Amino acid sequence: MFKVTFSFEDGSVVETFANAGDNLLEIARDHNVAIDAPCSGNASCGKCRVRLLSGELDSKKTLHISDEEYDQGWRLACVSKISSDVTVMVPDIASAYKSRMKVADLSSPEEIAIFEHAKRDIQLTGIELKNSLDVIEVTMEEPSLDDTMPDNERLTRALRKYVNIGRVNIPYAVLRKLPDVLRSNHFSVKCVVRTTSENMFVYDVFCADEDVVIAGLAVDIGTTTVSGVIINMENGDILAKGSSGNGQIRFGADVINRIIEQQKPGGVKKLQDAIIKETINPMIREMCKSAKISSNQIYRMCVASNTTMNHLFAGINADPVRTEPYIPAFFKTNSLFASDVGIHINPDAHIIMAPNIGSYVGGDITAGTLISMIWNRPEFSLFIDLGTNGELVFGNSDFMMSCACSAGPAFEGGDISCGMRATDGAIEACTIDKETMEPSYQVVGDPGTKPIGLCGSGIIDVISELFVTGIINPKGKFVREGRRIRHDQYGMGSYVIAFEEEAGSVKDVEITEVDIDNFIRAKGAIFSAIRTMLSSLDFDVSMIDDVYVAGGIGSGINMQNAVNIGMFPDIPIEKFHYIGNSSLTGAYLMLLSTPAEKKTYELANNMTYMELSTVPTYMDEFVGACFIPHTDTSMFPSVMEKLNS
Amino acid sequence: MFKVTFSFEDGSVVETFANAGDNLLEIARDHNVAIDAPCSGNASCGKCRVRLLSGELDSKKTLHISDEEYDQGWRLACVSKISSDVTVMVPDIASAYKSRMKVADLSSPEEIAIFEHAKRDIQLTGIELKNSLDVIEVTMEEPSLDDTMPDNERLTRALRKYVNIGRVNIPYAVLRKLPDVLRSNHFSVKCVVRTTSENMFVYDVFCADEDVVIAGLAVDIGTTTVSGVIINMENGDILAKGSSGNGQIRFGADVINRIIEQQKPGGVKKLQDAIIKETINPMIREMCKSAKISSNQIYRMCVASNTTMNHLFAGINADPVRTEPYIPAFFKTNSLFASDVGIHINPDAHIIMAPNIGSYVGGDITAGTLISMIWNRPEFSLFIDLGTNGELVFGNSDFMMSCACSAGPAFEGGDISCGMRATDGAIEACTIDKETMEPSYQVVGDPGTKPIGLCGSGIIDVISELFVTGIINPKGKFVREGRRIRHDQYGMGSYVIAFEEEAGSVKDVEITEVDIDNFIRAKGAIFSAIRTMLSSLDFDVSMIDDVYVAGGIGSGINMQNAVNIGMFPDIPIEKFHYIGNSSLTGAYLMLLSTPAEKKTYELANNMTYMELSTVPTYMDEFVGACFIPHTDTSMFPSVMEKLNS
Repeated sequence: MFKVTFSFEDGSVVETFANAGDNLLEIARDHNVAIDAPCSGNASCGKCRVRLLSGELDSKKTLHISDEEYDQGWRLACVSKISSDVTVMVPDIASAYKSRMKVADLSSPEEIAIFEHAKRDIQLTGIELKNSLDVIEVTMEEPSLDDTMPDNERLTRALRKYVNIGRVNIPYAVLRKLPDVLRSNHFSVKCVVRTTSENMFVYDVFCADEDVVIAGLAVDIGTTTVSGVIINMENGDILAKGSSGNGQIRFGADVINRIIEQQKPGGVKKLQDAIIKETINPMIREMCKSAKISSNQIYRMCVASNTTMNHLFAGINADPVRTEPYIPAFFKTNSLFASDVGIHINPDAHIIMAPNIGSYVGGDITAGTLISMIWNRPEFSLFIDLGTNGELVFGNSDFMMSCACSAGPAFEGGDISCGMRATDGAIEACTIDKETMEPSYQVVGDPGTKPIGLCGSGIIDVISELFVTGIINPKGKFVREGRRIRHDQYGMGSYVIAFEEEAGSVKDVEITEVDIDNFIRAKGAIFSAIRTMLSSLDFDVSMIDDVYVAGGIGSGINMQNAVNIGMFPDIPIEKFHYIGNSSLTGAYLMLLSTPAEKKTYELANNMTYMELSTVPTYMDEFVGACFIPHTDTSMFPSVMEKLNS
Repeated sequence: MFKVTFSFEDGSVVETFANAGDNLLEIARDHNVAIDAPCSGNASCGKCRVRLLSGELDSKKTLHISDEEYDQGWRLACVSKISSDVTVMVPDIASAYKSRMKVADLSSPEEIAIFEHAKRDIQLTGIELKNSLDVIEVTMEEPSLDDTMPDNERLTRALRKYVNIGRVNIPYAVLRKLPDVLRSNHFSVKCVVRTTSENMFVYDVFCADEDVVIAGLAVDIGTTTVSGVIINMENGDILAKGSSGNGQIRFGADVINRIIEQQKPGGVKKLQDAIIKETINPMIREMCKSAKISSNQIYRMCVASNTTMNHLFAGINADPVRTEPYIPAFFKTNSLFASDVGIHINPDAHIIMAPNIGSYVGGDITAGTLISMIWNRPEFSLFIDLGTNGELVFGNSDFMMSCACSAGPAFEGGDISCGMRATDGAIEACTIDKETMEPSYQVVGDPGTKPIGLCGSGIIDVISELFVTGIINPKGKFVREGRRIRHDQYGMGSYVIAFEEEAGSVKDVEITEVDIDNFIRAKGAIFSAIRTMLSSLDFDVSMIDDVYVAGGIGSGINMQNAVNIGMFPDIPIEKFHYIGNSSLTGAYLMLLSTPAEKKTYELANNMTYMELSTVPTYMDEFVGACFIPHTDTSMFPSVMEKLNS
């Protein structure tokens, strides 16, 4: 056994022991050390860089590590085996996916504005904000030798007096509490109940003088980021809001790699643990602390996530998602309870899930569609959710069609040499001076934070600026020279946004032709999906009245730049609207409002799913879109006009 | 810390460590060392005798240990504290309650006869042997790009084709299995389902070619002994039968002492663990092994037990059972599932419970009443269940009345100096020669087993014989002299049934005047309860057409001797019938037959409960019954005739 020490830039360490020959990335995964490995450890992405501080590693050389870097101790974790006691430094860039849990400060009105808007908007459509949970105060006669009814029948009788209901269901958890709670309160109590037309379910019983909050939990499980809110089910108030990296990230950046991991022995449990035990439960704990409530008082949960994520969450084999005919275990299910999956809220809490409509159009999209309101307007709108997959919904109050395209992780900084998520140190916006070719940029984090990489919106800006300033051509090749433009030994060009000395990183923050090429394919996938879906309906982009963009990438996204590079169609910029994390907001509404929940099911039922891979013209569209902005420049008149001005 | 070693007569040992001052009985309880302590450790019963083999104990002297015995190392565990490393011997008599698990040999027709009779008898009343569980073979179309229904909807659609049903409920446990089972069997499977008029619940899904057994579990949880059967739910066949001591026994012999124990911090969990983890789950494991089925294939469980036992089983505070107005948490509940209480069968299995009708007339009696069939005859019958409590039901097809009396543990050998349960070494039958006063007896166990104590039926025989032979008078005092009759220093008489040299015990097997007095009070409680209940209905014992006696004591019981001592009324002996463990047989029928289950609820609803303690004449009746056979000898004409012959 050798001692393996992972050392982080913040000074923290993780120590463990391993056998000779053990794979360093696997060891990191087993010990919850987050090393970015979007390709899931097959040496193709080059992201899992670690630096040897002491000891040796039996490590293959790869093109991702230059000779100089190798001498400095840089290795890829995925091709490194243990051969001695060893200490490696895990750079921040490699642990960019590190689970950073954050509980929001609700005193900032921006944090809750989106939920307030959603509440207001949905009510305008006539959907009421009511659900089946309620608190009822009940006072019973105390038992006596003449009134010998046992506790559960006594409570049932009393509840029936308050509500005209057939059947009262007192579950085991409540039955256990009954003798003590009733007797310590002279048979005067508060009950948390769920009432439907036929029966009543008693979730909990409290002292009559206790201040009872009925809480609910809405969670958006993104492939990369998980976010959630705890709400007051009586009025929809946000009691706490939090987010965290998805703990599954160490098993691969995209859903396909995760499914491959869960196919290995014990994998289903491992992936489920990563999302529930490591991610959601700690988030619940922190949010409950902030909301000052007991997690046991969360009586309902709504999950919105893509089809793979909700299978992995439920611990159900997701392999059918990725193999023809792509039919998974469920699109919707009513069978999940907190105790089934080990979510630390009230064990009897029902977990509802936003419905999936296909293997690649999941509950995040149906919940997001609810929020986009495109189903409530006669105008034709396009809803785009930008994530690891791009999903589109197009339609109006009469019809809706959806499709998904695999954009890859580029929008979230994956497949890009200096790419990272929109966390501290990410360049999120950039302009480049046409004359000097010098950049000005904006970095996520406190003022003065040094840049360490590029997040999705930053990449869009950089590529758009490079193109508009004529530094790169429509194929993404460098055609101007300057101090920030370099070519390596194979002639591959790159542009340095921040030199090592001004960067907070161990190397220059740059963008290479390979990066640009990867990004062009991602944006091409989106644009060609839009074109293909619209064409199949005999629509043209000019007929789109509004575009609603959702997803984590979006908050900093410059819509004009996205049009410039040919990611979005060239229509008036005021038609674009950013609607934030619509998956979470949708889950929030489904949780709070039973009619909104029903509406989402109705939307899912009415949405036509289009499998892009079966459309013969999609590939042609895609190839045409792999230029900046497009091979057919007539589709981008405003962009061409700008270039020629 | 001192080392504490418990050594048993079979040579086994249990070792642990304890602090100075720790109570020896508590240590034994914490380490599952069964030391008989019917009084629950307050030094009143004198049963928890252990013998010091090495080391010292800080031990109070008590009247239960003579000076000679003290010098030999005998101590009461309940008054002994640790003061050094110590080894104590736990004699078999003190561990008589030791959990002896036994799985029956079903090739013996007697083992299953009682269930066959019950099946036959209940069907004669028009009650069908049908339940809601079923196996359905289902073949689905395999999914394709044109038939994109997910697994759960596909199975639902297919099941609906077979049965005309509204709602199909596929629980989480089945949803998890679906993708793999369906795909490995080309979408052709067997489902175990429960079908009601409105919906179908899918318990399990199997390969189409698997031989699927739907098993059920019926358990009688006695205060002393737990017995159970695993059955085939399709035809009622007994697949396995087992019994075991109730692991709670180390927390007291009767329900009151157990309730007191569960009131201590952590007590509810401790008592629940003792019955579920230590007793029922190991029994299930052994029975499943014998039946060659997986415990996961047990889809339904029925429990029959007294009100305290079923509260302790469910882990629900039973304290209200023993405090006025004696109203517990539930009489009946529909809310219990295997996963709630940690019973190792299918986690979704419903646990049904025979209904209680009062704090002291529980599900064991309502289930037993079903078996007694007294509800199906115009004749007036009396059903007696003899246990730590005696319960009575009197009536016919028009009415039923029930009551309970506290007989104490005497029928099971408690409160009797040489008393023990009907296990190996117990004298279960005895006659005494009127001239020589020499006894002949029969011992439980293999031929040649030496007597170590007296069980209930043996005590009845001994007292009856002592009385009929004129050795004791109606007050239970010794009035003849002989080599087997002794008087101690206080003049208290006793009769030696087996001298130490012929006994398998460390002392003589004898019965003392104190024992006889204790037993007289137990039998007096039963007889006076019968009289009181009958009187309140303006009935006389002569109007009883049949008496059905149930309970563990019963198999060896000599009805004539029970009449001789005034325990049962003096009516023709052919009217008495022993019906075995009617609680278990009743649970079996409730499990197998939904109409029988409903019938039991109906019986419980129609049974009037009489609280004896509120009847003013009960105490007079009791005092009158505390003689052999009774102060009013005219009630026992046949006995008096025999005495005078």
